[in-house]
Amino acid sequence: MKIDRSRLEQSVQQLGRIGETPRGGLTRLALSDDDKRARDQMVAWMREAKLRVRVDQMGNIFGERPGTDALPPVMMGSHVDSVPTGGKYDGQLGVLCGLEVVRVLEEHGVQTRHPLTLVIFTNEEGARFQPAMIASGVMAGKIALEDAYNARDKDGLRLGDELERIGYLGSEPCLPRPLRAYLELHIEQGPLLEEEGLSVGVVEGIVAIAWSRLTIHGVQDHAGPTPMRIRHDALVAAAEVVGGIRLIAKELGGDTVTTVGNLTVQPNIVNAIPGRVVLSIDVRDPRDEALDRARPMVERVVKEACEREGVRWELEHYWRVPYTPFDPGVVAAVERAAKATGARYRRIRSGAGHDAQYMAAIAPAGMVFVPSRDGRSHCEEEFTPMDDIEHGANTLLGAALDLAGQAGEGRTR
Amino acid sequence: MKIDRSRLEQSVQQLGRIGETPRGGLTRLALSDDDKRARDQMVAWMREAKLRVRVDQMGNIFGERPGTDALPPVMMGSHVDSVPTGGKYDGQLGVLCGLEVVRVLEEHGVQTRHPLTLVIFTNEEGARFQPAMIASGVMAGKIALEDAYNARDKDGLRLGDELERIGYLGSEPCLPRPLRAYLELHIEQGPLLEEEGLSVGVVEGIVAIAWSRLTIHGVQDHAGPTPMRIRHDALVAAAEVVGGIRLIAKELGGDTVTTVGNLTVQPNIVNAIPGRVVLSIDVRDPRDEALDRARPMVERVVKEACEREGVRWELEHYWRVPYTPFDPGVVAAVERAAKATGARYRRIRSGAGHDAQYMAAIAPAGMVFVPSRDGRSHCEEEFTPMDDIEHGANTLLGAALDLAGQAGEGRTR
Repeated sequence: MKIDRSRLEQSVQQLGRIGETPRGGLTRLALSDDDKRARDQMVAWMREAKLRVRVDQMGNIFGERPGTDALPPVMMGSHVDSVPTGGKYDGQLGVLCGLEVVRVLEEHGVQTRHPLTLVIFTNEEGARFQPAMIASGVMAGKIALEDAYNARDKDGLRLGDELERIGYLGSEPCLPRPLRAYLELHIEQGPLLEEEGLSVGVVEGIVAIAWSRLTIHGVQDHAGPTPMRIRHDALVAAAEVVGGIRLIAKELGGDTVTTVGNLTVQPNIVNAIPGRVVLSIDVRDPRDEALDRARPMVERVVKEACEREGVRWELEHYWRVPYTPFDPGVVAAVERAAKATGARYRRIRSGAGHDAQYMAAIAPAGMVFVPSRDGRSHCEEEFTPMDDIEHGANTLLGAALDLAGQAGEGRTR
Repeated sequence: MKIDRSRLEQSVQQLGRIGETPRGGLTRLALSDDDKRARDQMVAWMREAKLRVRVDQMGNIFGERPGTDALPPVMMGSHVDSVPTGGKYDGQLGVLCGLEVVRVLEEHGVQTRHPLTLVIFTNEEGARFQPAMIASGVMAGKIALEDAYNARDKDGLRLGDELERIGYLGSEPCLPRPLRAYLELHIEQGPLLEEEGLSVGVVEGIVAIAWSRLTIHGVQDHAGPTPMRIRHDALVAAAEVVGGIRLIAKELGGDTVTTVGNLTVQPNIVNAIPGRVVLSIDVRDPRDEALDRARPMVERVVKEACEREGVRWELEHYWRVPYTPFDPGVVAAVERAAKATGARYRRIRSGAGHDAQYMAAIAPAGMVFVPSRDGRSHCEEEFTPMDDIEHGANTLLGAALDLAGQAGEGRTR
């Protein structure tokens, strides 16, 4: 039994047209009108595949396929929201491969002992509402429901209100429930699989992540008549911080990555000395102790830059997740399935956060990676070849069947 | 004959409520609804002061007071648009002091030989539409009317359409016309007058200004799984440029000032490596040759930063105005008037561009400065004490009378 490559390819293309950018990428921010349209399409497909659809208080969508026994389900899924000018593979590929698994089982009349549940998580990216992975975070009890509802986008709109507006504020409690396993197929978003000519990554765990927010208060003034000697320029201090944060990765070495991805200037006009800059600092490493070492280095970089320019600052370390190892049994099932597809594969660690990270706290979890061309993602050029997607989807199918147990196996064979 | 301090103070407060920010500053972008309301208020006051009001094709508003002789007018004025979260003195103080001059002449029944014209120029700040001083630029023949109409704000709205929308697309041609003189009172926007305890600056000229726009094309990618070794981060390159631009001022020394005031990042989210940064570079100096020297320095800073990060860039030097000396006769008239008020004054140069800069190309021009507390402007803290404003307005009155000639002088005395 194999997945239907052309049906899967068609679904990827069809869903990818909702929120498509002129250059072939995707802008489908969480709880936007396009997110609603993508959700509606997924719900329609789920119902066609005979799944029972439920929506919880965080707008997470579940499509349930009964098992033959009264056992906890195997859950598969990912997300359909994207970053601005992102790509068509991040998130939605995992949802569509999960859907394809269900479709192929239905087509072959295969029943499983454990139920199967397809899941679409709300606001995984954190591009519109922060923090990222907010809905799996609520499910895992790491984020309070009220805090999630009160998250606001840059225009001040509340997540809770936007859920209601697009019609996905469900009534099911968003709580941990017994699961046999949680499986998520996702693009690697890094260069390793492609560099080594592999189709599948068996993910062992997810790096530790720390997010900080720096606000620099300079003295806004006119760019012309204000002599250099009396300036306190928030952007000059911020620029030094950006350079210093880059150097921390070099100093720590190994797999540490550091990024300033978000930076906004006020008033942000040609002829005014910047009075305020807010910027983000993202530090990741598989080793939790590397993040422990990075934190005082970040603080020193900020202090030195701001003191040199004579500006006030606030530095908030507002989010941190430790290294998340996946369940050895689930990882082994994914590896067996990868091997069985004949795909070239390796064990790998994820450099990106995923809903699987929170799910690992409440269920045995694992992930399947497929390659990213040039290692690129969160951009319109994001791409994964269909040959690799086929191997990945078959790996997901094999692992799901392995973990859910094929009903009547041993009897019908 | 003196200006009416309390009437002037009241007008400053009243006009300052249109577009007032919660912290007492002003956000009144050119051709916004608040700009329209401020214009409407000014037109009403002009008519009360018996001025004949006309509006030209650039939305410049003229209030004309006839002279006794068929002579070219003395024009006084400034602008009523502001930067975002700017102050209540930049621009509107010049317009209101001009209005007060007319009011006091009317009150005393004083006629002048030359007519007097109060002017309000459109979009001086360049905060919404670029370049700055666009309307005096058109009047001076330095900017084509069509180019000005086609200037677009960040939301893509056309200046021409916005002029029409707020009802200030007039029919008078925007062309040079014979003027006896152009006078503009303005806040210094720098610290010198206050530092030296002076009330009035007799402005000798305006520094040369060069504006450039840098676009950096990095490789947008995910901030997690993308190893440092394959990154091409547009913001890291931009940060190095910001630091390098700051150093150019130090290297050139003297009165050179350099500023990166505007910087925008795409996609500007925590977990994406910035793919694109656009930033502004503002360089000013009284010496034109300093700007000539700065240009290759800017180019070297940009080239080195971008090559180091492996990113493409485009650098456009899109606007430059040379040092503008004011007319010696007008400067002398302003100095005589300042002396006559009894104010402490000095000769000074303007570090900021003003409509007087373009007007100097088509008329004998001069300016009156009043102090800025802590040298600050383009911010909500912008402030000038009423004592200084009174001295400044009386200087404007004296200079205007001097240049326009009081009718019947020598007969009635």
